Amino acid sequence: MTPYQKLEKKFDRLLTLRDAEMMLHWDASTMMPSGGTAARSEQIAALKTVQHEILSAAETADDLDAASAENGLDQWQTANLREMRHIWTHANALDDGLVTALSKASMACETTWRTARPESDFDGILTQLDEVLRLVRESAQAKAGVLDCSPYDALLDGFTPGLRAADIDKVFGVLEEFLPEFLFHVLDHQKTKPKPDLPLGPFPSNNQRVLGIKLMETLGFDFNQGRLDVSLHPFSGGTPDDLRITTRYDETDFTTGLMGILHETGHALYDMGLPKKWRCQPVGEPRGMDIHESQSLLIEMQACRSREFIDYMTPLMREAFLAPTLMETFGRHGPEDDPHWNADNIYCHYINVRPGLIRVDADEVTYPAHIILRTKLERALIADDLSLRELPLAWSDGMWELLGLRPNDHSDGCLQDIHWFDGAWGYFPSYTLGAITAAQLFDAALKSDSSILPAIGEGNFKPLYEWLGKNIHQHGSLYETPELIEKATGTRLDPQIFISHLKQRYLQ
Amino acid sequence: MTPYQKLEKKFDRLLTLRDAEMMLHWDASTMMPSGGTAARSEQIAALKTVQHEILSAAETADDLDAASAENGLDQWQTANLREMRHIWTHANALDDGLVTALSKASMACETTWRTARPESDFDGILTQLDEVLRLVRESAQAKAGVLDCSPYDALLDGFTPGLRAADIDKVFGVLEEFLPEFLFHVLDHQKTKPKPDLPLGPFPSNNQRVLGIKLMETLGFDFNQGRLDVSLHPFSGGTPDDLRITTRYDETDFTTGLMGILHETGHALYDMGLPKKWRCQPVGEPRGMDIHESQSLLIEMQACRSREFIDYMTPLMREAFLAPTLMETFGRHGPEDDPHWNADNIYCHYINVRPGLIRVDADEVTYPAHIILRTKLERALIADDLSLRELPLAWSDGMWELLGLRPNDHSDGCLQDIHWFDGAWGYFPSYTLGAITAAQLFDAALKSDSSILPAIGEGNFKPLYEWLGKNIHQHGSLYETPELIEKATGTRLDPQIFISHLKQRYLQ
Repeated sequence: MTPYQKLEKKFDRLLTLRDAEMMLHWDASTMMPSGGTAARSEQIAALKTVQHEILSAAETADDLDAASAENGLDQWQTANLREMRHIWTHANALDDGLVTALSKASMACETTWRTARPESDFDGILTQLDEVLRLVRESAQAKAGVLDCSPYDALLDGFTPGLRAADIDKVFGVLEEFLPEFLFHVLDHQKTKPKPDLPLGPFPSNNQRVLGIKLMETLGFDFNQGRLDVSLHPFSGGTPDDLRITTRYDETDFTTGLMGILHETGHALYDMGLPKKWRCQPVGEPRGMDIHESQSLLIEMQACRSREFIDYMTPLMREAFLAPTLMETFGRHGPEDDPHWNADNIYCHYINVRPGLIRVDADEVTYPAHIILRTKLERALIADDLSLRELPLAWSDGMWELLGLRPNDHSDGCLQDIHWFDGAWGYFPSYTLGAITAAQLFDAALKSDSSILPAIGEGNFKPLYEWLGKNIHQHGSLYETPELIEKATGTRLDPQIFISHLKQRYLQ
Repeated sequence: MTPYQKLEKKFDRLLTLRDAEMMLHWDASTMMPSGGTAARSEQIAALKTVQHEILSAAETADDLDAASAENGLDQWQTANLREMRHIWTHANALDDGLVTALSKASMACETTWRTARPESDFDGILTQLDEVLRLVRESAQAKAGVLDCSPYDALLDGFTPGLRAADIDKVFGVLEEFLPEFLFHVLDHQKTKPKPDLPLGPFPSNNQRVLGIKLMETLGFDFNQGRLDVSLHPFSGGTPDDLRITTRYDETDFTTGLMGILHETGHALYDMGLPKKWRCQPVGEPRGMDIHESQSLLIEMQACRSREFIDYMTPLMREAFLAPTLMETFGRHGPEDDPHWNADNIYCHYINVRPGLIRVDADEVTYPAHIILRTKLERALIADDLSLRELPLAWSDGMWELLGLRPNDHSDGCLQDIHWFDGAWGYFPSYTLGAITAAQLFDAALKSDSSILPAIGEGNFKPLYEWLGKNIHQHGSLYETPELIEKATGTRLDPQIFISHLKQRYLQ
């Protein structure tokens, strides 16, 4: 075997073990009884340690060097080698002890968070969060030394290879300049239009689930290759041939859970579309978390909140929740004057803008403010410019400054998101980078194929997924992120396309 | 660290990875969509390979030798070391390639079996089964060389350390001599009694599930430490703090699924009772599969088919399946003359003897015949005295000889059990050894505490589990099997106690 071939074998094993680990995470979030927490934490830490040992073996470093000198690698193999080195660099910066400690501290803290959040108990979780932050900081510093960047950059690089804080500043700077005044205009404009008037519930979870499954199938999700379950914090996990998406149901409001399902389906369909030939090789992996978020947000924000899709979806919603007897009397589209199950009304609800305290409930216009705040705060925490004790006040001041609101307690303040407690520092920017990327990709897709939007209006996502497959999914990690975006859309990432999209949707 | 301490660390990791693997097996049997099969097979093979590498590292052998020479190990540590060596010996006899090949071949063959069985397609699975058998035989031969026993002995030793075919011959010989004539008497005696007359269904799966959960709780199962789900082949899996038991529901007959749940609960409660202090150490593991089966059969056959428990359970059954309006009219025990929901009738059903083709549906009296046949056949197949092509006919002749029946097709013949297809050769004897052990343990328990059986009649399993905890569960693998049985009951394994139990239950 050549050094490159040896590496392919090694990384196949590595990513297979990582997949096993992801499945155990999925189980922990959906199926596991509470008594299983301690043992599961040990299992996941053991799996992480094995992966780390494979990467930090001296032989792996030697093979990487030798493979770089090999001739005759094709484009995919060369990219594969680049991605291998990226994974290796991140792993090799840390020692086994730190990997194990971080895995266990994160799992323990995340478990505490599940009860601390509803109880608004920031003090009760402070010691554990402090330990997670200490270990994350230690790991970021170690990586920064190797990657020759700041510790926060090193964390970003772990989720989106090549991404630096300076890139974010440029893009977020544009939004910070644009959004406050825009929000003012939108709220003003909104006053001139009718208010959304949501149908009255309750909306039984099982009806929501049936509707969710129907729409997942409409999007192209294959239930022979995946499942839909319930978890406290919705996510998409699993492997490309066995995708596990989760949601949570609120029986008083079906609209949020439903969009959540469509969002996670966007994630899942990206994984499903990755190049089959490169399964369990780094080049066959998704191209970083900002592209991943762009795939979910393209579905949720661009495609499924389009007027075309709302027109298609409204009768299905009505059908899902209205008693069969009423359906029989009025038919699928209902009486002309039914104000609730009316596409105008549902559309109006889905594009309603209202500054709020909770990120996951935020509308498209105010969402970036949540991300800008979290990015600033986590940067400051990692750089030790802010202490965890000061976090709640800094959060409150930040929300006041950005959206004119202050949290009522920690549960709608700094305890609301799982990320920091779970060790995922440096992840937040992906959401807004994803939103900007999604707008740019959708715009390019519509320009390249004018049948995409009319097809969505008929519940046909094939043309859209054909374009996405060809331009994004099938490339896996062949290109680096900026190159991938440029190849797909003709330009580098440009927040102006996102801004145009917002203007068009919210000021008309 | 001393060599012994190093080994404790290593085996902790080993068994933690084994637990992760078990969870992925559970998921594959209960939750996984069909598309996930190939990836899951890779994940499980990768986990097996990592475990094998830990064991076959030269350092492990050195540590085992050095630890054996250590002074000052206490009784538990000494037993732990003995069990470590047992695990090591089995692993070290095989090379990595064989471990991976056997894991993948078994998973592929088991997947095919799921469709081959209902289709009675023995020819279609022959090549895959042949490959599994070839690899099992190769592995048995390699182990036989190290353990200084026959290949079949080596397979037995993997499930029940120390067990040899000669031990089985002794015990099974007694049964083979006793059972045929006894069966004749039982069937004769049965004719003099009323026939069981089962309530009419359908019995909705969910009602069966609710009743199952209620009885699991009665037995002492803690749902914070486990779950009940559905799978094609019921089993008990997971870890002591996160037990996953499965069943299948037949809506035309609730009695089989219910006893299945109680059987698996017996397995689970054994795991739950293992010494907490020795979690993920070999000495803290269950004491071999025959003791494990004794725990499920003690619950299913001894405790839950006792007249006392049937008296307790019958009104609960009625309550579970009767419409609430009827319950209101007649109350929990129903009209005096309701012949179906009557403990005499239910008891009569549960101890009804009827030779049949399917092992898992067999009654207590004919069950050993199924095991005796499978044991003979797998011994012959491993020794190459029988070929797979000849298996269906040998099976048919064996059934004819033992129970006077011939299979209609392969699905109620040699395709009915998962074991061989899944690579579990040498497991079958555990069932009948377990039944014999269960009778002996239950007999000793009742003699030691006369409150056990009356308590069971009130749905109180505490006295029984106190005795089992003290005499079996809390010892983990501290003693070898014959010693454990002797300490608990005062004598070595004695089939005469099982025979007395059968005489008492079936000839009265």
